[in-house]
Amino acid sequence: MFFKVKTSEEVLDILKGFSPVGEETILIEDALHRVLSREIISLEDLPFFPRSSMDGYAVRAKDTFGASENLPAFLELGGEVIMGQVPAGAVTPGKAIRISTGGMMPEGADAVIMLEYCHALDDRTIEVTRTVSPLENVINPGDDFKKGALIFRRGYVLRPQDLGLLAGLGIQNVAAFKRPKVAIISTGDEIIPIGQIPEPGQVRDINSYTLSAFCTQAGASPVNLGLCRDIFSDLRAMVARGLETVDTLWISGGSSVGARDLTVKVLESFDDMELHVHGISISPGKPTIIARIGNKAVFGLPGHVASAMVVAEIFLNPFLSRLSGETGSLEDNHFYVQAELERNVESASGRDDYIRVKLDKRDGRYFADPIFGKSGLISTLVEAHGLVKIDRNTEGLYQGQLVDVMLFKFFKRAA
Amino acid sequence: MFFKVKTSEEVLDILKGFSPVGEETILIEDALHRVLSREIISLEDLPFFPRSSMDGYAVRAKDTFGASENLPAFLELGGEVIMGQVPAGAVTPGKAIRISTGGMMPEGADAVIMLEYCHALDDRTIEVTRTVSPLENVINPGDDFKKGALIFRRGYVLRPQDLGLLAGLGIQNVAAFKRPKVAIISTGDEIIPIGQIPEPGQVRDINSYTLSAFCTQAGASPVNLGLCRDIFSDLRAMVARGLETVDTLWISGGSSVGARDLTVKVLESFDDMELHVHGISISPGKPTIIARIGNKAVFGLPGHVASAMVVAEIFLNPFLSRLSGETGSLEDNHFYVQAELERNVESASGRDDYIRVKLDKRDGRYFADPIFGKSGLISTLVEAHGLVKIDRNTEGLYQGQLVDVMLFKFFKRAA
Repeated sequence: MFFKVKTSEEVLDILKGFSPVGEETILIEDALHRVLSREIISLEDLPFFPRSSMDGYAVRAKDTFGASENLPAFLELGGEVIMGQVPAGAVTPGKAIRISTGGMMPEGADAVIMLEYCHALDDRTIEVTRTVSPLENVINPGDDFKKGALIFRRGYVLRPQDLGLLAGLGIQNVAAFKRPKVAIISTGDEIIPIGQIPEPGQVRDINSYTLSAFCTQAGASPVNLGLCRDIFSDLRAMVARGLETVDTLWISGGSSVGARDLTVKVLESFDDMELHVHGISISPGKPTIIARIGNKAVFGLPGHVASAMVVAEIFLNPFLSRLSGETGSLEDNHFYVQAELERNVESASGRDDYIRVKLDKRDGRYFADPIFGKSGLISTLVEAHGLVKIDRNTEGLYQGQLVDVMLFKFFKRAA
Repeated sequence: MFFKVKTSEEVLDILKGFSPVGEETILIEDALHRVLSREIISLEDLPFFPRSSMDGYAVRAKDTFGASENLPAFLELGGEVIMGQVPAGAVTPGKAIRISTGGMMPEGADAVIMLEYCHALDDRTIEVTRTVSPLENVINPGDDFKKGALIFRRGYVLRPQDLGLLAGLGIQNVAAFKRPKVAIISTGDEIIPIGQIPEPGQVRDINSYTLSAFCTQAGASPVNLGLCRDIFSDLRAMVARGLETVDTLWISGGSSVGARDLTVKVLESFDDMELHVHGISISPGKPTIIARIGNKAVFGLPGHVASAMVVAEIFLNPFLSRLSGETGSLEDNHFYVQAELERNVESASGRDDYIRVKLDKRDGRYFADPIFGKSGLISTLVEAHGLVKIDRNTEGLYQGQLVDVMLFKFFKRAA
């Protein structure tokens, strides 16, 4: 099995072999942060008529040429553009029509002169004290988007303003990749449901809750299959059941050799199984298993929750992006802050180390304090704001050194 | 009204005058990114029994003192700890009991020696080639959290690992602040529902969709009240109705003087209205109105969508955090990247300018390209990745200068 221990780069490469899930049609009201499965082309000019972008007077620019405070131009007032309507009149030479922001430009006008440069002399005449250029303060048809223009590519993730644009174009629903469904199984004879009082030797199920929330945060749909005893037939049945309904399956196993062996034995019992990874040269997170059964990825994750979370951040996060159809999805999509390390950290060479750090901001600068502690302690994760990678070719990091802190994704979500 | 034009700092200060919404009890399964309304204290030690953090043998550390490859110690094998159970035997001097990661430490043992330093000589004896210290590879009761410890403060936002910890402590539900409810009204005689074909002069409702999605992204619940004509009685009735059911009300108005005057007139017709802000010294976004009616904040937002979005990012985002009960919520909660500016940008002094920029990454460095264009164009927002602030005391920024780009929040959310 030893040859199945892979580097991070090899693992990310293997994960590229899995394809996005299917597509569905959704309303734009429900499309925030969803990934487009088809490109979107504008079927019309936006806007489709010329509009004023200011409050003022629609004019022929040339009628204002040379106008200034000292030498104002005088224009004849020809009514007002009513919002939402086609202007009643046209702008002929020497004429001005009152217009509000967003109003439709009248025939004959090619510019809008802002209110503050105009003074009404009487009901019929305004004095203009500034020159406007043709097209000044005017939004022309197609200035936003032209008919036939590519609006969004396939694989694009929709933000609030993108939904606003779709609304503006009258596009009420879009084709989007489905949210990947992730089955989560928590194994271990010592694990009990969280509603139960543990006996000595027993612990409550931490990993299902952490991993489910991680999925939700990444935009996937977790399907919690529940707890499984370390019994071959039980685990096999649960894996088989999960594979029927979800897009990927995550087994959060014990970190003991016995538990890992059981997971591998169960996976090997599937005919079309291919074991891709048995160990990754990272710490924590080394005892990770990745297999393909049919076209679905099955992960055996370390039982220590801190190890499982590191694997989730580094590998499962981009993997879920890929399943979601996001383009460029196997690139790192984390946010980073640069911080000064507060203490020396040693590292074994030959593997990538991910240390948990706590951030502190003083005088506008960030400081990263390494959290040392066994990866079986969840407190090390709860106290941490993110991870610092120590590359396998580096022996350690020094106090005062600038490091890039990969932040745990930490954003409020929709209901 | 002129004296009601406020700086950004004054506006943020005014927004501190509004209080968080009420609280509710929710299941931890539903608590991702929710804000705790009460602190959480651990009611037990985690773990509550001593556990091994490695696969190996539970021993008395002193029985291994001095052991090495050349001078191994020999220990008598005394059975195995079964996962999830209290160990059957105890470790007496000279004895070792096989234990897996997560297993309960047997009576008498104070350390675990890892498997790789042990060799079974026969069924009853192991050879130990390394010294272990007391507590090595052992997690003691309370090592994660002690009974009575403060786990999370009021105002804390829950992440996946935090939910894992709650699960580990058997805490199945928590008291959380409710999601703020935001009523959104889109005004303007030229605005039509997106399902309708616009006549010349009419445009589809972009702002409701943009602002609703913005709310959702910020963890609030938008309540879209729909379109309203620029008619006093219509708008007044809609505002009154909205104020009855939501925590804050946003009127996305026309940017014309007439539309703004109508909004102010409607607000002034409420007895307990206090007009806090009539104009903010920022660009875009100046024509913003903020009033308090009863204990609720009412915002009159600019009709230009790019202006409305800048106001949303800079003011509504921290305001929603505050309503959500987040502590430290009026501090900036955006993510930034540092980038080199691609072109010179001029700026008028006396106001904070927010320019939209498009990011590009080349050779590992970010470059920010300013997007010039009227704030009535949604394309300027759709092409942009974030905003760069030009402080009101700065006259402009230069090509090649390093700037901090405030990223539009852009994360996938839960269903």
